[in-house]
Amino acid sequence: MTEPLDVLAIGNAIVDVLASAPDELLERHGLTKGEMRLVDTEGAERLYADMPPAVEASGGSAGNTAAGVASLGGAAGYVGKVADDELGAVYTHDIRAAGVEFTTPPLVGGLPTARSMIVVTPDAHRTMSTYLGAANLLTVDDIDVAQVARARVTYLEGYLWDPPEAKEAFRKAMDTAHAHGQLAALTLSDAFCVDRFRDEFIDLADNHVDLLFCNEAELLSLYQVDDFDTALAKVRGRSSIAAVTRSEKGSVLVRGDELHTVPAAPTELVDTTGAGDLYAAGVLFGLSRGLGLDECGRIGSIAAAECISHMGARPQARLADLI
Amino acid sequence: MTEPLDVLAIGNAIVDVLASAPDELLERHGLTKGEMRLVDTEGAERLYADMPPAVEASGGSAGNTAAGVASLGGAAGYVGKVADDELGAVYTHDIRAAGVEFTTPPLVGGLPTARSMIVVTPDAHRTMSTYLGAANLLTVDDIDVAQVARARVTYLEGYLWDPPEAKEAFRKAMDTAHAHGQLAALTLSDAFCVDRFRDEFIDLADNHVDLLFCNEAELLSLYQVDDFDTALAKVRGRSSIAAVTRSEKGSVLVRGDELHTVPAAPTELVDTTGAGDLYAAGVLFGLSRGLGLDECGRIGSIAAAECISHMGARPQARLADLI
Repeated sequence: MTEPLDVLAIGNAIVDVLASAPDELLERHGLTKGEMRLVDTEGAERLYADMPPAVEASGGSAGNTAAGVASLGGAAGYVGKVADDELGAVYTHDIRAAGVEFTTPPLVGGLPTARSMIVVTPDAHRTMSTYLGAANLLTVDDIDVAQVARARVTYLEGYLWDPPEAKEAFRKAMDTAHAHGQLAALTLSDAFCVDRFRDEFIDLADNHVDLLFCNEAELLSLYQVDDFDTALAKVRGRSSIAAVTRSEKGSVLVRGDELHTVPAAPTELVDTTGAGDLYAAGVLFGLSRGLGLDECGRIGSIAAAECISHMGARPQARLADLI
Repeated sequence: MTEPLDVLAIGNAIVDVLASAPDELLERHGLTKGEMRLVDTEGAERLYADMPPAVEASGGSAGNTAAGVASLGGAAGYVGKVADDELGAVYTHDIRAAGVEFTTPPLVGGLPTARSMIVVTPDAHRTMSTYLGAANLLTVDDIDVAQVARARVTYLEGYLWDPPEAKEAFRKAMDTAHAHGQLAALTLSDAFCVDRFRDEFIDLADNHVDLLFCNEAELLSLYQVDDFDTALAKVRGRSSIAAVTRSEKGSVLVRGDELHTVPAAPTELVDTTGAGDLYAAGVLFGLSRGLGLDECGRIGSIAAAECISHMGARPQARLADLI
């Protein structure tokens, strides 16, 4: 594989276990709607035993973004750790069948493939309880320098910014990208990630990445302010580009003096799982095609709208036909 | 567990691997639209490698029927063989979470849990390639006499009428049901099953079961005639009750001199996977409630219509709310 990649996404390789359920299920398990929390084996078993019949589908934030870039017609790669088990085989099939280059060797003889139990409540919001398993065991050896060098943007998922080995892998990926004149991007992923790694994320945004993706809550938390304009003023000029999603209010993209407010694309709201991931796919695809920042945001809105119009985090329509 | 069951369903415990794909995929693999064929490990891998990204959901014909009976508000049980692996855990969770009693011990250290690759073409028809694995290893020891005795109807899936051990299990289940004054039902499952086991199925229908489920193609094949009325005349009076589905033409139910023609319920056609299974659930539920045969057929039509209005073989709405 020697062709250039538009986007190389690196993150937790996770199979989603999706079920529709009433709000009471969240209450019974002390879950906060819209958030992601980590669970251990026992916690996973306890929640699963109480969940309605579910469907399984490949997910993982950066994996969804890679699948979105491919669906838009871009050349996408993915780096993530599955185990050598049945769900790992499912994950590997799905990402490759989506047209994404995926060569990370599976973990053999260790923890099982990660899974995230996603409860979709009647208001279409998703609440995730993730058992990380093999996904969290990505190491610096899984970063292929030649692959990073081929990618216009290497996109890193904040969810994986936790185990020291994975951080080292991220740093190697960012440094490699820059050494080859390419770009590095980071998504803050979740408010809980920002809480845990605020100083490190601010340092990454200031000094190590060229694009920052986050939603409004994550941005407010990052700078510990409670006003969107104040938070936006803080992020401007730090990363070269920041793209901030605001749910039904659409998104705001900033680069130096530029500021673009992009509305959400109209759609029927069924399941918000993956909306932010697909927004990022649209923006990254647009940037790789040299489009203006406002146009990038528009493609992000369209990709996100397709995603939230059905159950599941990956595109069901060919996104290239929608833009 | 000592409560009476309305329906105990016995069949191949299979996880469905569902993907939408164009007709060309069927052509490339020599698949006949609408049929089920068996594949070995190698054949499964070859097809899977060529399939688009998929979603996994518990299936299996009789399992779908059991889930349908529970969704209608009936007391359902299921007997089927999964392996002690990840997909087996998924299957076990889903059938229990659907409210179905399921106690068959998993196979340890043998073949993996069965999976069926289901290609849904743009016309909404499903074509199945099934790797049977552990499912086919159901034995007479998996039939719990006390459980069969508690069930008003024991419902057997023709797909499983193949390995000698499973046939023995079926015979034990039928004999046990009758010994306790209960009913036995059989679905012919698929034209390929009828082709392989025509004489045995005719014997079962004539002498061993009280209800026969089939679709029009299976009925024509069973009696090797090409006219529906001729075939129907042959089946009348053999099984006590025969229920024959005819796709968009609805169904015909016969019992002695009774003959009821029931229209299909209107719906949007998305995926026909499980339609026959859910029709059977409706009829069996109606019979367990002592309803007239025409009313049973009407409930079957409603359950089938819900099933074909979405991807996947099991109800997404609560069927009890629809009837």
